[in-house]
Amino acid sequence: MIHPTPTGTRDVLPDEMRELRVIMARLRETFDRGGYGEVRTPSMEYEDVLRRGDARAAGAGYRLFDERGAVLVLRSDMTIPVARMVASRYPEAPTPLRFSYIAHAYRAVEAGSGRPREFMQAGVELIGEPAPEGEAEVVGLMLEGLEAAGLARHRVGIGDGSLYRTLLGELGLEEPEQTALLETLTRRDLVGLEVRIDRLGLSGPAADLLCELPRLRGGPEVLDRLAGEPTAEAGRRLRGCYELLAERGVGDRVIFDLGLVRELGYYTGLVFEVYDPAVGFALGGGGRYDDLLGRFGRALPACGIALDLQRAHIAQAAEERLR
Amino acid sequence: MIHPTPTGTRDVLPDEMRELRVIMARLRETFDRGGYGEVRTPSMEYEDVLRRGDARAAGAGYRLFDERGAVLVLRSDMTIPVARMVASRYPEAPTPLRFSYIAHAYRAVEAGSGRPREFMQAGVELIGEPAPEGEAEVVGLMLEGLEAAGLARHRVGIGDGSLYRTLLGELGLEEPEQTALLETLTRRDLVGLEVRIDRLGLSGPAADLLCELPRLRGGPEVLDRLAGEPTAEAGRRLRGCYELLAERGVGDRVIFDLGLVRELGYYTGLVFEVYDPAVGFALGGGGRYDDLLGRFGRALPACGIALDLQRAHIAQAAEERLR
Repeated sequence: MIHPTPTGTRDVLPDEMRELRVIMARLRETFDRGGYGEVRTPSMEYEDVLRRGDARAAGAGYRLFDERGAVLVLRSDMTIPVARMVASRYPEAPTPLRFSYIAHAYRAVEAGSGRPREFMQAGVELIGEPAPEGEAEVVGLMLEGLEAAGLARHRVGIGDGSLYRTLLGELGLEEPEQTALLETLTRRDLVGLEVRIDRLGLSGPAADLLCELPRLRGGPEVLDRLAGEPTAEAGRRLRGCYELLAERGVGDRVIFDLGLVRELGYYTGLVFEVYDPAVGFALGGGGRYDDLLGRFGRALPACGIALDLQRAHIAQAAEERLR
Repeated sequence: MIHPTPTGTRDVLPDEMRELRVIMARLRETFDRGGYGEVRTPSMEYEDVLRRGDARAAGAGYRLFDERGAVLVLRSDMTIPVARMVASRYPEAPTPLRFSYIAHAYRAVEAGSGRPREFMQAGVELIGEPAPEGEAEVVGLMLEGLEAAGLARHRVGIGDGSLYRTLLGELGLEEPEQTALLETLTRRDLVGLEVRIDRLGLSGPAADLLCELPRLRGGPEVLDRLAGEPTAEAGRRLRGCYELLAERGVGDRVIFDLGLVRELGYYTGLVFEVYDPAVGFALGGGGRYDDLLGRFGRALPACGIALDLQRAHIAQAAEERLR
């Protein structure tokens, strides 16, 4: 008799669990060594709290009600709960603050999409460290963690989440048009992007950049295209992060990907995505979110990065088969 | 600015997490050594699945809806999900099957009760091993796990969940009266129990036993009171378990507690509760549930035991202060 688990959820049996435990242990050791203290937050948050962090994050999860009728939401990531925790529990603590977690997160999925509804994330948040040192630390740590976990060919894609806001502002676009274009970029729909640019009648150097940048991908040489205004500042941020990662010995794992725009609304600077050539999907990602902590009452620059543990496991197993 | 977490939930900060991690690691080592493979099941189950296991378990958790309107419930323990998993994923596997877990569970709580709504359990389920070997194995393993985790004076209370059903049947009571009396016993409301017995006009040896047994607590000598019918079989079960635990070297940790009746409806034989004199609450418990697996399509005897990790941690810390 088969009794199904809810759509998008699954059982993890002992053989798989044993392998996941090894990956989790290696990541924990790496996070510990970096001084990232592990925390746990509730699986559910008041919807108001998630909405304060990001309106879209609040809509993404599952809703339930407590005995007083308040709306609770299963968290869709750990970044907003950690921001809430820092403001509430560390209102005066000296910075930087370093936290790690291995925790489930949840998102609503369409039936039949095959996407997980419940997934386990391992990640770090670095609070109070500005760019580019913060980015280089969390990205470097995660790359080292993946190496410790048995991956060999993993890479990090680095883009800049504020690059397009700047460009779109330069083009004089209003908020709703900006958001529509950013969503097209987030989906990496470059054809749709050009259609929109044409339809809006945009032209000139900024419009050219807007078409061209999302296709740029490669080593630090792609940053040359950002040298002029209004993208020079983003170029400096990206190059600064690269130099620190190269010092850390992981420069060869970096791929600049100027088409990378992460889904969530709270990123304000560099954004990351982790890949491995053995599998065709991102293993995780993150970015800088300098405005988020302030929404909870303790304005601090911050950045973080997280892995989807099941995806990291699939990549690690695929790498092992290739050896 | 304080942003509260939902009633009955809390953040676990790094200092506490470090201590919890040590306890979890010691328990995991113990479970691994016993051959218990760690599993993970979804935090949410279809309500139908929980209800098939136990109608009360389905009512205890939080409800949410999936995109097709099916009712999902956050699990209130791991026993029913493991039973579901065994029937679905191990329909033919040779027995006994041994599974362990460290997982969150959820229950609805009254606001202001101070009881946790989200709690973390560490436990084992032993499927396909009859009494008394099964009971002795899971109880012995958990006692050893707690010793490995730094507890020193912990005890297990052992009672018999079917003892009172047998007695109440002997007294000729109908189902609703039996359930009302069992609920009084579950609450350990011995005054209420006597009032009910008087009101029903019960008398004779079975009625005397019904009043007397819930007060019996102590070493194996209390089992002498069960020697006559209809309680002789329960007495043999309890003594059989004791002898195996004594062979395992943990007989001195056993307290027979004939007033112990665990809340959940699926227990069919011995029931357990774990204590430590340093704290005034049970750290966990379990019991035999021989009818549960059959409800999911693979009829097998089974038993299990689980700890509340936060409570075990409080007890361990209290023991440490006493040293």
